[in-house]
Amino acid sequence: MTINLKNFLNDKTKMSKMGEFQNLKQIEGLEMSSVSADLYGNGRDDLTLFYFSKGANYATVNTTSSIISETISWNNSSHKKLIKGLMVNTKNANTFTGKQGKESLDLIAKNLSRILTIKESKSEGGTSETVRTKDLIFASTGVIGEQFPVDKIKDTLPDLVEKLKTEHNKLFWLKVASGMMTTDTKPKVAYEELIVGDELVKICGIAKGSGMIAPNLATMLSFIFTNAEINSNLLKSLLKKAVANTFNAITVDGDQSTNDMVSIFSTKAIKLGPNLSLNDKVVQKFEFALKKLCLNLAQQIVVDGEGAKKFLTVKVINAKSLSSAKKIAFSIANSPLVKTAVAGEDPNWGRIIMGIGKSGEMVDYKKLKIKLGDFIVAENGKISDIYDEIKLKEYMKWDSINIEVNLKLGNDAFECYTCDFTHDYIDINADYRN
Amino acid sequence: MTINLKNFLNDKTKMSKMGEFQNLKQIEGLEMSSVSADLYGNGRDDLTLFYFSKGANYATVNTTSSIISETISWNNSSHKKLIKGLMVNTKNANTFTGKQGKESLDLIAKNLSRILTIKESKSEGGTSETVRTKDLIFASTGVIGEQFPVDKIKDTLPDLVEKLKTEHNKLFWLKVASGMMTTDTKPKVAYEELIVGDELVKICGIAKGSGMIAPNLATMLSFIFTNAEINSNLLKSLLKKAVANTFNAITVDGDQSTNDMVSIFSTKAIKLGPNLSLNDKVVQKFEFALKKLCLNLAQQIVVDGEGAKKFLTVKVINAKSLSSAKKIAFSIANSPLVKTAVAGEDPNWGRIIMGIGKSGEMVDYKKLKIKLGDFIVAENGKISDIYDEIKLKEYMKWDSINIEVNLKLGNDAFECYTCDFTHDYIDINADYRN
Repeated sequence: MTINLKNFLNDKTKMSKMGEFQNLKQIEGLEMSSVSADLYGNGRDDLTLFYFSKGANYATVNTTSSIISETISWNNSSHKKLIKGLMVNTKNANTFTGKQGKESLDLIAKNLSRILTIKESKSEGGTSETVRTKDLIFASTGVIGEQFPVDKIKDTLPDLVEKLKTEHNKLFWLKVASGMMTTDTKPKVAYEELIVGDELVKICGIAKGSGMIAPNLATMLSFIFTNAEINSNLLKSLLKKAVANTFNAITVDGDQSTNDMVSIFSTKAIKLGPNLSLNDKVVQKFEFALKKLCLNLAQQIVVDGEGAKKFLTVKVINAKSLSSAKKIAFSIANSPLVKTAVAGEDPNWGRIIMGIGKSGEMVDYKKLKIKLGDFIVAENGKISDIYDEIKLKEYMKWDSINIEVNLKLGNDAFECYTCDFTHDYIDINADYRN
Repeated sequence: MTINLKNFLNDKTKMSKMGEFQNLKQIEGLEMSSVSADLYGNGRDDLTLFYFSKGANYATVNTTSSIISETISWNNSSHKKLIKGLMVNTKNANTFTGKQGKESLDLIAKNLSRILTIKESKSEGGTSETVRTKDLIFASTGVIGEQFPVDKIKDTLPDLVEKLKTEHNKLFWLKVASGMMTTDTKPKVAYEELIVGDELVKICGIAKGSGMIAPNLATMLSFIFTNAEINSNLLKSLLKKAVANTFNAITVDGDQSTNDMVSIFSTKAIKLGPNLSLNDKVVQKFEFALKKLCLNLAQQIVVDGEGAKKFLTVKVINAKSLSSAKKIAFSIANSPLVKTAVAGEDPNWGRIIMGIGKSGEMVDYKKLKIKLGDFIVAENGKISDIYDEIKLKEYMKWDSINIEVNLKLGNDAFECYTCDFTHDYIDINADYRN
């Protein structure tokens, strides 16, 4: 299950679909490159570098798994707030790689800092500052427990730095987003912008997806870049709030990969004002745009879930607490029986009842009202009086299915997103390593 | 996905496999019958009755789902300790059936008690007592939310009572166990016996299985019968202890169907002694036999899991607590990525690492030692020095795969059982209702 990126970018059918992607723009202060270290043995891009010659403010939300990759462990080693570069590799997760994995990272960081420092000293507008290893962070995605391919990556670093570009059009963003794919079938990109005074504030986001049946058993990576100057603490608050109902709405709490990472970088090219806080109007506008961008990326991940044919939204309303709404929504969304019913286009709402019950959350089943799309299927503790199997079977043929559970117990709500569960999921995952 | 039971019992290939089943014997004081109410429209047995003319002591462990079937709700309505009969129907779960489901059960109980009372009054050795509706309990398994087929069942009650047999050989036990199957491909039966003084204490158990990917999203029913006299309180203690490492070792806590039920019945034909307690030797012998029988049935359920091709044992040892061992074991056993790797015969131990991590339990990854069968695959925070992919690929071809996770943190351990995850699971569940 390797993606031939060259083919993707050269494939006319796919490229004719370029219109489906948003038009990402250049972020001042960011340089990017994506090349092949031949980790897959087929020449596809697998190594990506994001470089900020003037540094970037930075915030991240990482996996909460009790076992983490050497890369995440590296990133955590100092509480970085200002960084110079992020390097992403695919194929190998650098998890459970022991001393070899850690030492590989040390060596790569050392080499990368040296090569970047030379580049700086040569560049016209460069700062001529030394790029220190501690200014660099990493992300990895791929197989766990295999030796980290240190030599291949180290040998590719000169090329990776050489290819850094300050100008990035839509196609280049797609190339970079494609360079970090694993089982994804297409790159995930999103763009938002807002006008602040005379300035154009841009937010560009890219992501790679994950195996979708239990959403985050495979690695999810997303990197977001903005030219607006926002300090790291504020970035952290904004990112956490945005992730809660987007990336974490396709993610069961505490049920994540060893490598999950969503990060945001501010190149500080555009000043938004002094002493910004969450209450400032300009920050609230930014927050709104960021949430929209994150939801867009999160939904693209679900749509491209392994083997996915249908997009499924599960909305739980009128719960007695947010935590209760969340538990019930994920209990339904993670049920293989619900997901296979959706794949089979079967309006088997009994499985939704089972999903609610197994959440363990107390509900009053006589109050429950369950809808599939606009159709009420169950209320008052029984099948709806206007239940219409024929209409429902028609509805289940749609590409996007909505389940709504009205608990009638309170005022809290939560919405989460998943996909159906098909033969292709088995095919992809029974043979992932080969 | 209906099973034609007649075909099963007439099929020579299958019947030639009769030897794979244990030789269940007659339980004095128990009468059984299994007939067709034509709930599936193909004449298979779907209605089963267990009748105790002299009553039976009784204990049960039911689902902990927050939504339960009308049948379980009926059984809970009084804390029954002595019962006269248990009726089991398949095809319809009688869950979320509202007033219709509840009233159906009232009507069926009334009719059944009347017919059984008439039978009593006519029988020679009968007690001539009235069989009260509150002496009856029920179990249902099948689709949720569909109207309960009250008429078909009611009309079949005379036949069901008429066909009650006091003598039951192995074949008859298989017929009865088959009468409560849904997507099971074969009946599940188990037998244990022990000599107490001059008496033969017998324990007969039957079960029906469940969709196996998240073990208890579909209904699991098991009924156990013994001729030994054990009071209901002691039965309850024994059953709870036995279930913990057997039926609940294929079951994630709080993640059950609306209808799950494991019950034990004592016909009191053989006296074991007065004032029995868990500390009595004879009770301990009984407990040992009961656990063995429950493990046997639980493993048969896994082996016959929907679409299952391989049996998977996940053992977590040297944990700091039982609860931690349990969480980690189930986190691995419920991982679709682990289950698809097993289906693909891929020794992808990285997914075991992921399963451990996502449990959220704190582990010291440098202490971890992971084995596939007898092969150490990972220790000291990295792949094993003696890792041999070729040998492991050979091992993964086996029908029964063992995963052992040694945490080296304490002295607690837990073992659970599951199966692999195949295309057939999708086929069965995408089209279950049809």
